[in-house]
Amino acid sequence: FLFIYLFLHSATPTEELNGVGNLMDFLDEPFPDVGTYEDFHTIDWLREKSRDTDRHRKITSKSKESIWEFIKSLLDAWSGWLVMLLIGLLSGAETRPLMTSLTRDTPTHDIRDTHSLHQRHTHSSHQKHTLMTTEIRVYLLNYFLYVLWALFFSFLAVSLVRVFAPYACGSGIPEIKTILSGFIIRGYLGKWTLLIKTVTLVLAVSSGLSLGKEGPLVHVACCCGNLFCSLFSKYSKNEGKRREVLSAAAAAGVSVAFGAPIGGVLFSLEEVSYYFPLKTLWRSFFAALVAAFTLRSINPFGNNRLVLFYVEYHTPWYMAELVPFILLGVFGGLWGTLFIRCNIAWCRRRKTTRLGKYPVPEVIAVTGITAVLAFPNPYTRRSTSELISELFNDCGALESSQLCDYINNPNMSRSVDDIPDRPAGPGVYSALWQLTLALVFKIVITIFTFGMKIPSGLFIPSMAVGAIAGRIVGIAVEQMAYHHHDWIIFKNWCRPGADCVTPGLYAMVGAAACLGGVTRMTVSLVVIMFELTGGLEYIVPLMAAAVTSKWVADAFGKEGIYEAHIQLNGYPYLDQDEFTHRTLATDVMRPRRNEPPLAVLTQDSTTVEDVETLIKDTDYNGFPVVVSRESERLIGFVQRRDLILNIKNARQKQDGVVSNSVVYFTEDAPQIPASNPQPLKLRRILNLSPFTVTDHTPMETVVDIFRKLGLRQCLVTRSGRLLGIITKKDVLRHMAQMMNQDPESIMFN
Amino acid sequence: FLFIYLFLHSATPTEELNGVGNLMDFLDEPFPDVGTYEDFHTIDWLREKSRDTDRHRKITSKSKESIWEFIKSLLDAWSGWLVMLLIGLLSGAETRPLMTSLTRDTPTHDIRDTHSLHQRHTHSSHQKHTLMTTEIRVYLLNYFLYVLWALFFSFLAVSLVRVFAPYACGSGIPEIKTILSGFIIRGYLGKWTLLIKTVTLVLAVSSGLSLGKEGPLVHVACCCGNLFCSLFSKYSKNEGKRREVLSAAAAAGVSVAFGAPIGGVLFSLEEVSYYFPLKTLWRSFFAALVAAFTLRSINPFGNNRLVLFYVEYHTPWYMAELVPFILLGVFGGLWGTLFIRCNIAWCRRRKTTRLGKYPVPEVIAVTGITAVLAFPNPYTRRSTSELISELFNDCGALESSQLCDYINNPNMSRSVDDIPDRPAGPGVYSALWQLTLALVFKIVITIFTFGMKIPSGLFIPSMAVGAIAGRIVGIAVEQMAYHHHDWIIFKNWCRPGADCVTPGLYAMVGAAACLGGVTRMTVSLVVIMFELTGGLEYIVPLMAAAVTSKWVADAFGKEGIYEAHIQLNGYPYLDQDEFTHRTLATDVMRPRRNEPPLAVLTQDSTTVEDVETLIKDTDYNGFPVVVSRESERLIGFVQRRDLILNIKNARQKQDGVVSNSVVYFTEDAPQIPASNPQPLKLRRILNLSPFTVTDHTPMETVVDIFRKLGLRQCLVTRSGRLLGIITKKDVLRHMAQMMNQDPESIMFN
Repeated sequence: FLFIYLFLHSATPTEELNGVGNLMDFLDEPFPDVGTYEDFHTIDWLREKSRDTDRHRKITSKSKESIWEFIKSLLDAWSGWLVMLLIGLLSGAETRPLMTSLTRDTPTHDIRDTHSLHQRHTHSSHQKHTLMTTEIRVYLLNYFLYVLWALFFSFLAVSLVRVFAPYACGSGIPEIKTILSGFIIRGYLGKWTLLIKTVTLVLAVSSGLSLGKEGPLVHVACCCGNLFCSLFSKYSKNEGKRREVLSAAAAAGVSVAFGAPIGGVLFSLEEVSYYFPLKTLWRSFFAALVAAFTLRSINPFGNNRLVLFYVEYHTPWYMAELVPFILLGVFGGLWGTLFIRCNIAWCRRRKTTRLGKYPVPEVIAVTGITAVLAFPNPYTRRSTSELISELFNDCGALESSQLCDYINNPNMSRSVDDIPDRPAGPGVYSALWQLTLALVFKIVITIFTFGMKIPSGLFIPSMAVGAIAGRIVGIAVEQMAYHHHDWIIFKNWCRPGADCVTPGLYAMVGAAACLGGVTRMTVSLVVIMFELTGGLEYIVPLMAAAVTSKWVADAFGKEGIYEAHIQLNGYPYLDQDEFTHRTLATDVMRPRRNEPPLAVLTQDSTTVEDVETLIKDTDYNGFPVVVSRESERLIGFVQRRDLILNIKNARQKQDGVVSNSVVYFTEDAPQIPASNPQPLKLRRILNLSPFTVTDHTPMETVVDIFRKLGLRQCLVTRSGRLLGIITKKDVLRHMAQMMNQDPESIMFN
Repeated sequence: FLFIYLFLHSATPTEELNGVGNLMDFLDEPFPDVGTYEDFHTIDWLREKSRDTDRHRKITSKSKESIWEFIKSLLDAWSGWLVMLLIGLLSGAETRPLMTSLTRDTPTHDIRDTHSLHQRHTHSSHQKHTLMTTEIRVYLLNYFLYVLWALFFSFLAVSLVRVFAPYACGSGIPEIKTILSGFIIRGYLGKWTLLIKTVTLVLAVSSGLSLGKEGPLVHVACCCGNLFCSLFSKYSKNEGKRREVLSAAAAAGVSVAFGAPIGGVLFSLEEVSYYFPLKTLWRSFFAALVAAFTLRSINPFGNNRLVLFYVEYHTPWYMAELVPFILLGVFGGLWGTLFIRCNIAWCRRRKTTRLGKYPVPEVIAVTGITAVLAFPNPYTRRSTSELISELFNDCGALESSQLCDYINNPNMSRSVDDIPDRPAGPGVYSALWQLTLALVFKIVITIFTFGMKIPSGLFIPSMAVGAIAGRIVGIAVEQMAYHHHDWIIFKNWCRPGADCVTPGLYAMVGAAACLGGVTRMTVSLVVIMFELTGGLEYIVPLMAAAVTSKWVADAFGKEGIYEAHIQLNGYPYLDQDEFTHRTLATDVMRPRRNEPPLAVLTQDSTTVEDVETLIKDTDYNGFPVVVSRESERLIGFVQRRDLILNIKNARQKQDGVVSNSVVYFTEDAPQIPASNPQPLKLRRILNLSPFTVTDHTPMETVVDIFRKLGLRQCLVTRSGRLLGIITKKDVLRHMAQMMNQDPESIMFN
């Protein structure tokens, strides 16, 4: 039905592409567009906040007038929770079609049975020749169908993205981080993006590419959040408040993606959000709760559990096992560094060479290679979540998979009670080889997959790499413990009747380490992992691996994959790293030494024509207002948009305002002779509390102020005299310069 | 051995009482005491941060000089992690003596067996009279001993606190919150407090009072953190950096108190810390990991688990059960409100009346009443953690406690398969009565206990109240489901062979709700609860109860118990609530309209004598420096301490500086005639980037800036002219005024 909806609406995609921008209702504003921002501009958090406080005060004072107004004020106060409820419900409900389609559409499903039949037969080698050829024919047919379906799905996905919603590609988390830090990307969270991303996500995952659906689900949840924001003027008209909702929506997204509500809240806090006050924490918590609740009502895994990869291990872990766990952490850190470097290098090549012009052939080619290489190996053929699930699993008594093919020899020379671990059978050894191949394949192909023009998440592939490596290490440790059970370190590991080592636990730890190396999460990672698996007992191994992985990866480069993509795309994102250079505000501010002086307005000597010329000649977002050009004492700051709108309005409606009317920013316009034209009083739009620093302020303080207060610009003064201006982009440019990067490379491109 | 240590050191308690203040080593500073703060003063976060950046830059530039300096810089960089490691190890290790002494010292232990013997006998009522009297005599003797031991322990505890470390009383969390927000309370985290609090905590818990050890353990961990800070000049000399360590120490404290490392990090984030950047998050995570690891190595619960109250329920929960869960949430919210109101009223009475002068008799009286009333009821007689543990427990087949006394009638009229729930036996009914009495008793006595002059935590008593209420509700629902199993809502609850309702789960949910109502935690509460119990499956019920409880409690008053105590004690704590009043900076700044003008210095016309007079006449922490008294254009801000030290130093060492030397704050002192005395150049100590706002800045913005940047004061200007100053205390006073409180009541008293 999504397709029907899509085709019904495809007649007018261009008008709709701007997303929710059109859904806003500006009618009851004094002038339309006052206080909105243009596309690809930075918002001013302080201003948004004080606008919201004004609105709140207005409603509170009105609420005492009548019961109706009181009810309206209550509704307004509760609209935040209502939006959270809606987001939780919708993102919880979204999972249903996603889950079902994914399992129905995966091409491997129809083929597995035939294949396992085939495999069983090849093992017993004295079969008739005719059966063999039939089998080979069936295998080849399956192979062909597998590749064909994969190509078809991925072609459909990339075409839909190209045609209807170019923003629906990738994981979306870098862009959401940027948006949450206070940047405007119109349409990125629009309803077309929502629709297309949901549809193409199913297709992309079904095509068997090495990608996950968790990151995109966060994007989808944020689109839902944005959609619901447009229902309430409190959120649709205030970019600051809107971002509070989006932070909570990101939490709800992870909550449904992994069935991990607490992990979702922490992910939003640690990885995605920029400002995360306690109020947003509680709201996110509520949204995640509702989402988890909805998910549980839907019961997608059919086991009354929220948990995606439920594990149950029967043996505790031993202190000595921390050594392999920490080694897995080191591996995770190294893989994270390798992945980020290679992926960024490849994405940069895509951006700068002609490769970027052919996204559809690129996707087709990668899908083709993936499908051709993945099919022969049973561990890469199945869907990645199933692979992870199998790797996490403990080998119970009834487990029949290849990985659990241990030799149960009743005539063993040693007594069974002493050494409950069993020697590995041929199945385990062949599984080990296949897993090693799968590991290499996954490592390489994921580098090329992430960043293509289809929705693609990174959580599941990273976890798969870690789980494979972990399981291999786990089996190795287990066999060592079996063959050298007399070594001092293995002495106390085994109790009668139970396995000594749980290879599944190693897979879990490895998955956490790799995910940590790529994303640099710590707390949220551990919480997500134990919410995913229910393995609360294994919190110390998980934490040890996560911390090691972060340390190792940070030693090679501070950026996680999301920050690296933000920088690659040149979004103006002011990250939390400390600025340690010894520069002052005066080194960063504009105008520089040999530039023309700052474009300023005077409080009582500029004419309307002067202002209009200034607006035409420059593209600054606002202008400082000073007492006079001689004294240069700052009195305020006026927004470009507000100036344009007010002058236009005054020229239309207000009598006597002509080109040589004087614009007054003072409290009272002086008495003027009747011969002079009517003055234009604009104190109303003057921001009387612009943010200022002195020219001697160290840049580390300026950066801190920009980051913590979310400023758009800041004026530089020396003992009251205006010297210059610093914008957020100036700060970013300066930071890039200090890190020996090309300052122009960091701007949005 | 603690006592021996204590008596060995008790000879010099007064010198030591100032705590770690004395441990600092000022020798390599240019002037001693430069950049430190006085007791009960607010720190300036921006200044601390920029001092740390300076230090860091110095070390980095030095590190290129020699290998030794490079190693020193590496050590400096890793000292943060090293401190975390030490904190984790020490707070993990601290738990050992605490746990063992607690279980050994609890007076109930020796008596339980005799008592249960007694009870069994009274039930079978046709016993000989002599045996009865013996039993009564034993019972009375036990009763007497119980009360006596309780009195002895509590007397010892309160005396130790009174004599050696007055700061060791209470839970410590309100004060730690205040300290972390940037306030100096010397000795609060000193080593005497650490020692005495550890000893008296054991005594207080052993005395059977209605208090827990979790809050005080956070205080103890923070003392450890402060102790380790003094080992590294990076932390001992920078109040901002020191607070980063303390945040992490609080996390480690909760981590060991509950065996909940993730919960600890979140508790520090949500409840205790003021600034919690991601770097601190990761460090806290590491400290909590080490603490949990140490705890696990020590294995205090003897079950290889970190979990304090491990539960294992066998039945899932049903949607309809959310109704009682939410009702428990409402109960939790109401109890939280009631507790906070009554406790604050009682504490205020203690502060204002003569009651506060007799802390020792008060503790003795409360202990006496507690012991006398607690002994007859088996549920209040045992230690509170044991009570909670029993209430959380599911009734297994082998459970023999009173609470699990269900009737197993094989001749039941209904078929057993249909209704696995069993009717309650007389034991359950008598348990219900005793629990109800215990509930009332706990509710009342906790109000009077929290805030006395002994270490007392609130977590365990709150959880106990909730667990009792929850268990009662749970049994009620269970019996309803049994007696009315044909009602539509109970239709699908029961599966053959399993209980339909788990009363233990209700106890768990109730405990979470009550704890949430008192402390207003949400995310950290749920995480702590499921780390405590291992009940990851019950995340949705726990979240629902926590959110409801917070909503209900917030409807009656926004403050949690810790904020309420902060306000009661008048600490200068700027909380995160939004300031919505319509005042401007000009309404708050000093001087007010009819006050004398601001005490300022001029840049080149003040003499040393003028400065000294100003310092003597006023007690301001610093003075703005202006161009001249006429223009009043601001050029900087100078700290009082720096002025005093520099003038003193100049008078001693620098030739020619006399009383009528002119003090210059300009870059170059002008050429002066030789007849004039040598000038004193003080630009070095002038802060050239004081923080300014205009007089039209709305107070909501000013509050936001103070909160986010952690300012100590802020200058108010209008077009470059200095008008006044706003300090953090002015902001707090104004906020109190706006909330119709007495502004003077909020200052530290």
